[in-house]
Order: sequence, then structure tokens, then C-alpha cells
Amino acid sequence: MTAIRAIPLHGMPLFETGMALAREICAAIDRAGEVLGGDDVIVVAQKIVSKAEGRTIDLSSVTPGDEAHRIAVETAREPQMVQLILDESEELLRTTPAAIIARHRTGHVLANAGIDASNVEGGESGTVLLWPRDPDASARAIRADIVALTGLNPAVVIADSMGRAWRVGTVGTAIGCAGLTVVDDKRGTGVDLFGRTLQATQIAVADSVAALASLAMGESDEGTPAALVRGVGAWVRDDDGPGAASGLRPIAQDMFR
Amino acid sequence: MTAIRAIPLHGMPLFETGMALAREICAAIDRAGEVLGGDDVIVVAQKIVSKAEGRTIDLSSVTPGDEAHRIAVETAREPQMVQLILDESEELLRTTPAAIIARHRTGHVLANAGIDASNVEGGESGTVLLWPRDPDASARAIRADIVALTGLNPAVVIADSMGRAWRVGTVGTAIGCAGLTVVDDKRGTGVDLFGRTLQATQIAVADSVAALASLAMGESDEGTPAALVRGVGAWVRDDDGPGAASGLRPIAQDMFR
Repeated sequence: MTAIRAIPLHGMPLFETGMALAREICAAIDRAGEVLGGDDVIVVAQKIVSKAEGRTIDLSSVTPGDEAHRIAVETAREPQMVQLILDESEELLRTTPAAIIARHRTGHVLANAGIDASNVEGGESGTVLLWPRDPDASARAIRADIVALTGLNPAVVIADSMGRAWRVGTVGTAIGCAGLTVVDDKRGTGVDLFGRTLQATQIAVADSVAALASLAMGESDEGTPAALVRGVGAWVRDDDGPGAASGLRPIAQDMFR
Repeated sequence: MTAIRAIPLHGMPLFETGMALAREICAAIDRAGEVLGGDDVIVVAQKIVSKAEGRTIDLSSVTPGDEAHRIAVETAREPQMVQLILDESEELLRTTPAAIIARHRTGHVLANAGIDASNVEGGESGTVLLWPRDPDASARAIRADIVALTGLNPAVVIADSMGRAWRVGTVGTAIGCAGLTVVDDKRGTGVDLFGRTLQATQIAVADSVAALASLAMGESDEGTPAALVRGVGAWVRDDDGPGAASGLRPIAQDMFR
């Protein structure tokens, strides 16, 4: 195994609805003095994908229903925000003043169904940003655009910062993925140093790559919303693969609903 | 922010009780052609720390009690293994045939209280490996040994692969830490691009570094149980800091017991 490297891609523009991510990513790779390779992984922050897809919503345009009003009181939140969380979710796992933990439409479990009010034009309480409609489809589309622009076929991961049930702080996590093995399932395929079958090793490759890239991108501003990850070519694949949703635990196996 | 890099440290020996980790890590850094720096992070797999600390246990030496026998039936496990999980845990969160999820003595929540039967000398069912007694203390001790050997003060993280409540596969996670900021708490300290106070950004730095390093170390054998991580010097500190346990959500805030 060679070294793994994450190179932040600086100087990208502020994104607005309809802007082409692939072109800006390729320009940023050039500016960084790097040459894109077909076994690289491009990690893109959810925020700019959502903006390019026009997923900005004005809270004042949302009409909260009865359930939203009830949960808003329970959780000390704006009813409009709660309505959006409900609209974006399959189910709410916990509703407390400290956090609303939702199972997003896509199956990912996270706070506030991924809805974010920071780094969105429009002021303190006016505008929020939803996740892409289908983050795996977004990753596939960006990958196809990069193939069209460069003739190369790197993997694309869309990352968002997610909390964890029992740990403080967030780590970058893969919410969309094209061309990277999401989970490398080594169960029963290998032996350990003493000749025994490996037990239950399934490596969450896409999430680990997202964690690394998010650390390289930083969190404090929107100036570095993408990174190039190298040294994980063993997991880059020609086809798009099943996407980040394939790395979610099936509801029937969820012990923490 | 510069690039972040993880360099696997190949060719380390099999560890036995009493062996000095710091010396072997420094030798492996030399072999890799790298020169250790004071703002590097050395990530060490839990497994070799446990072995060097003599945390190997023969299951046949364990006498299971009534609770262990009861849970062993419930979960289709060996009563001796269940007794060890109980001994290593503060509380068991879930006990099902699919998994036993425990809050380890140290506060970390994970499957089987971190007890591992692979890559341990002694055969299919004989011998298992427990976590270090105090992984943060182990990280501090390794760091002190490296200072003594080299005069340099890099950070040390002890990593183990952990599952997540709602996602398939494991990611490297920090179970011991000395000299690295565990959680970078940016709440209220910064403004976003539009001048608003950043909301709830707390970056789980040590866990992200552990995720990266674990990917570089791989999972299939014990040949690469350490990695050197560069480019995160902004989070390396002179003092040891509060350790990985400070990155655990307090029980009073645990929504998923």
C-alpha cells in the first residue's frame, strides 16, 4: 500500500444554480499544479453540489403543518425548518431540543436531515440549503462530465460532515459516490497472519476517503469545497458501482431506531 | 491548508509482551526513507499496543458467571467471550445474535467491547486480545518514549476499526490520543463567507486522522500496523491534551442507549 494523499482544491468560485461543477474542479486541479489521473478520487462538498442544483429554499416560502408545529415546540425550533426536515425525511429517530436525528429520504441518518443554514446567501434566518435530490446520481453526473471534459474516469465522492451517535464532533462522510468501492468486504476472503479466516472485516472505504478529504478541505469557509485524493486507486472502479446508499445498514438491522 | 498525507510504516515485527513500540516505529520511519518531524502524527493500530502490553487472554482461563451464560444463549456466543465483554464494559447497549454493542470501561461504544480474536497467536478459538487498559495513557507513554529517543514531540494516536450505528463497514477511530487536538471546536469562533456566526461546527480531528491512517494501513494483515500522518500540524500540540476519551458524548447526552 502506497501513501494516501488529499490535496485541497483552492480558489473555486461561489456556486449558483446551474453552474458546472466538473469544469471548475478541473480548473482548480490545474491551478493546484496537479495532473488528474484515472485512479484519483475527486471529493466534493455537499454544499456546492446542492447550490449548483438549486437546492436553496427560503424558509418564508414553507407552510408548516400540524406535526411540524408540534415538533417545533418540542425541540424549540422554527416550524418552517421542522417542516423542511419532515419533507426531507423518511422518519425522525429522535426529536429533542439538542438535536433532531432523521433518516433522510436517501436512507442516511443525520441531524436535521442535512439541512444547513450556514454559508447560504440570504441572511441569518432566511435561506437554507437542502441535500441534493439524489446524491449518488449527482456523483455519477459529475463523473460523466469529468469523463467528457478530460477523457479520464476518476471516482467522485460527495461528502458531508456528519455527527455520530456516541462521539463528539463531525467527520466527513460519503453521501454520494460514483466509481469508488463504498465498502470493501473482506469477510471470509482472506486469512490472517496465523492462517485463520478473517472475521468481520468490512472497510468503509468511501467514508474513510470522505473523512480524509473533509479534513483537508477544512470547515471554516467555502473557499475549499473540493479535494483530490490519491493513493486509493485499488478501490477506484471503471463502473459507477452501487453508490453511497449501498453503505447504509438496512432498516431491519438497525438496532438504534 | 496544505495536503494531508498518510505513509504506511511497513516491516514492523510481530509484537509480544514488553516490546518497545517507540523504537520499532522510529526504525520503520527510517526504513520508509522519512524523517520524523515534530508536527507529524504517528498512528498506531490498537492491536500492537495491546500485544506489547500483554493484553492477550486465553478464553479457557475465563470462568463465566450467570449473566454471561444468559447473554451467551441470547446472542449465540461462547460464555467465556461474553464474560470478557462484561468485564471490559460499563454497560451493554444491545445484545443480539448479530452484535453485542458495549460501552467499554473507557466510555467508547463499540462491538464486543473491542475484543478481537483475529491475528492473535493461539488458534481458532483459544486466544483473544483486549484493548489496552487505558489507551490514552498508552498514547502518552509512546509519545514520551519517542521524545526520549528522538528529541521530537510528534502526536500519537491509537486507532481501532469501529462500526457505526447506521452504516455498514468500519472506519479507523481514535481510541487513544496524545498531542493532537481531539475535537476542534469552532462553534461561535468564526464567521462564514456571509458574515454569520458558524453554527455547530466541531471537527472530530483525531477520528478523521485515524480513519485516514487506517485506510493506509489496510486491514488484511498485521504487517502495517502503523502510519505516519503529515499535513495536520495545525492540530498537533505541545501538551498531551485531554485524550481520545474527551471526544466521547457524555452519557447524559446519549440519545441511543
